[in-house]
Amino acid sequence: MPGEFELIRRHFSRPAHGAVLGAGDDCALVAPSVGMELAISTDMLVAGTHFLPGTDPCHLGWKAVAVNLSDLAAMGAQPRWILLAISLPEARDEWLAAFAEGVFACAARFSVELIGGDTTRGPLNLCLTALGEVPPGEALRRDRAVAGDDLWVSGQPGFAALGLAHLQGRTRLAEALAARCVDALNRPLPRVELGLALRRRHLARAAIDVSDGLLADLGHVLDGSRVGAEVLLAGLPQPIVGVEAELARRCQLTGGDDYELVFCAPPAQRDQLVDLSADLGIPLSRFGRVVDAPPGSLRVIDEHGQPFGIATRGYEHFA
Amino acid sequence: MPGEFELIRRHFSRPAHGAVLGAGDDCALVAPSVGMELAISTDMLVAGTHFLPGTDPCHLGWKAVAVNLSDLAAMGAQPRWILLAISLPEARDEWLAAFAEGVFACAARFSVELIGGDTTRGPLNLCLTALGEVPPGEALRRDRAVAGDDLWVSGQPGFAALGLAHLQGRTRLAEALAARCVDALNRPLPRVELGLALRRRHLARAAIDVSDGLLADLGHVLDGSRVGAEVLLAGLPQPIVGVEAELARRCQLTGGDDYELVFCAPPAQRDQLVDLSADLGIPLSRFGRVVDAPPGSLRVIDEHGQPFGIATRGYEHFA
Repeated sequence: MPGEFELIRRHFSRPAHGAVLGAGDDCALVAPSVGMELAISTDMLVAGTHFLPGTDPCHLGWKAVAVNLSDLAAMGAQPRWILLAISLPEARDEWLAAFAEGVFACAARFSVELIGGDTTRGPLNLCLTALGEVPPGEALRRDRAVAGDDLWVSGQPGFAALGLAHLQGRTRLAEALAARCVDALNRPLPRVELGLALRRRHLARAAIDVSDGLLADLGHVLDGSRVGAEVLLAGLPQPIVGVEAELARRCQLTGGDDYELVFCAPPAQRDQLVDLSADLGIPLSRFGRVVDAPPGSLRVIDEHGQPFGIATRGYEHFA
Repeated sequence: MPGEFELIRRHFSRPAHGAVLGAGDDCALVAPSVGMELAISTDMLVAGTHFLPGTDPCHLGWKAVAVNLSDLAAMGAQPRWILLAISLPEARDEWLAAFAEGVFACAARFSVELIGGDTTRGPLNLCLTALGEVPPGEALRRDRAVAGDDLWVSGQPGFAALGLAHLQGRTRLAEALAARCVDALNRPLPRVELGLALRRRHLARAAIDVSDGLLADLGHVLDGSRVGAEVLLAGLPQPIVGVEAELARRCQLTGGDDYELVFCAPPAQRDQLVDLSADLGIPLSRFGRVVDAPPGSLRVIDEHGQPFGIATRGYEHFA
């Protein structure tokens, strides 16, 4: 059986032209662009918590990178480099080959380079660190929303959570819908281009990516900005058809894993955001507004103007 | 039980004055020094592989940071920032408090700031990422050793491995020696000042930190530089007394976890290195030389000038 270092070389050593020194030394070396700030994020994915045991390793590789790039997207940063630490119960060549394929496919799609990492033995665990660049003072933070801002969300939140419910047998989707939902779960597309455009065109005041649930992550923006929000279900994308309405709604409001962006923008930007949506081919839905209310407080209003009760806002690891 | 976000806030949110934006958003933001290269390293520590289950969480926090800073030391980089991703089977307040104490103690000792991270549920796993700065072209790499260079090692490699042998009941050390060895295992001191001095004074051509074993890590330098080496046992620090001689020697040659530096320097630097050792109060031992031989090849010579047989060079995770 090949040793640790041979395995790393075989599957993860590819030239990193955007780095001064890529994988293989004590550290990677990079030369940041002069005058830019660095945005850095680290995310850990654990079998059974973030993905189902037995998940296709190629999907897993893609998703590990995508989840991390989503954090850069939410700051409006240009992704540049990633590092990957991985713990594996056993080093199977075939598994590693498929996993690396997913990692490099996602990295290539978003023009980032794998510049280093670590491989060790242990329960399956993936830890990605991503670095991106953003002009000073322009990052999209969580703490800049103000009362009066519109709430926006990209894409169709809820598909990934429905995919998970389907895989876990909690619902039974028709074949085509199941395929779409499971794909959303397995191969999320981080909204890098959207985050960059929001930042460059100065359209959003605050942003976050939806990893724990639309309401949960919106709640972090509200906490950080010390404001409340009014969420209008009528403003969200049409609930997915072919599913129990209540499940579809719950997945939309509290399902994570789609890695859509939620952002707060002044009403004066509405026309520009509609144009941006068309330019990028990404649906953008205006689903409420930021209000002057106790920090973190949320009022959800249904299509009939009535308060809509929710038991939970999303996923908490130790709740 | 407090939720994930409350736990993170409670134990890991401290102001990071050296960052534009610390923990709590999608990404941390930092402003790298103009004209410097960034050295970046990520290391994963797994219970049962890198530390004994039941290790004091304060020691664990210290060690997780120390191991990572050691990689920066081996490049001659000035440590600046760290990120910490952690997976825990359960979130116990007391454990987290002690762990955070160790993390922040090591960070303070080496003037780095914790700027972000991730907390999740799963088998105990710690993934640290460290960032440091180094002037362009001056990092101490693995691939720059040349035949004729001297081999040097800092400190007393072998103490940590002996400490582990003691804790595992493979040997029985006297109380004072046991305390010293276990301390070397639990609270390694990364050789940051040494790495910086070697780089600033241009004394070393190539360097690596000893994490997997003196011979194993030296082997990576030899592989990278496409050279061989002759190791003289007479040049290494005196084997530790009060231990079976064979175990002491094995720990010295193949034990990891001391996080000493091995480096290659031209013979013309000998006097300066002796001065540096005195300046820093760190023992430096000249234990052989780089030779023109098959890449990665090692000849170990005992005190009588005879070849010394070794079964293994160090630790390999999947060997």
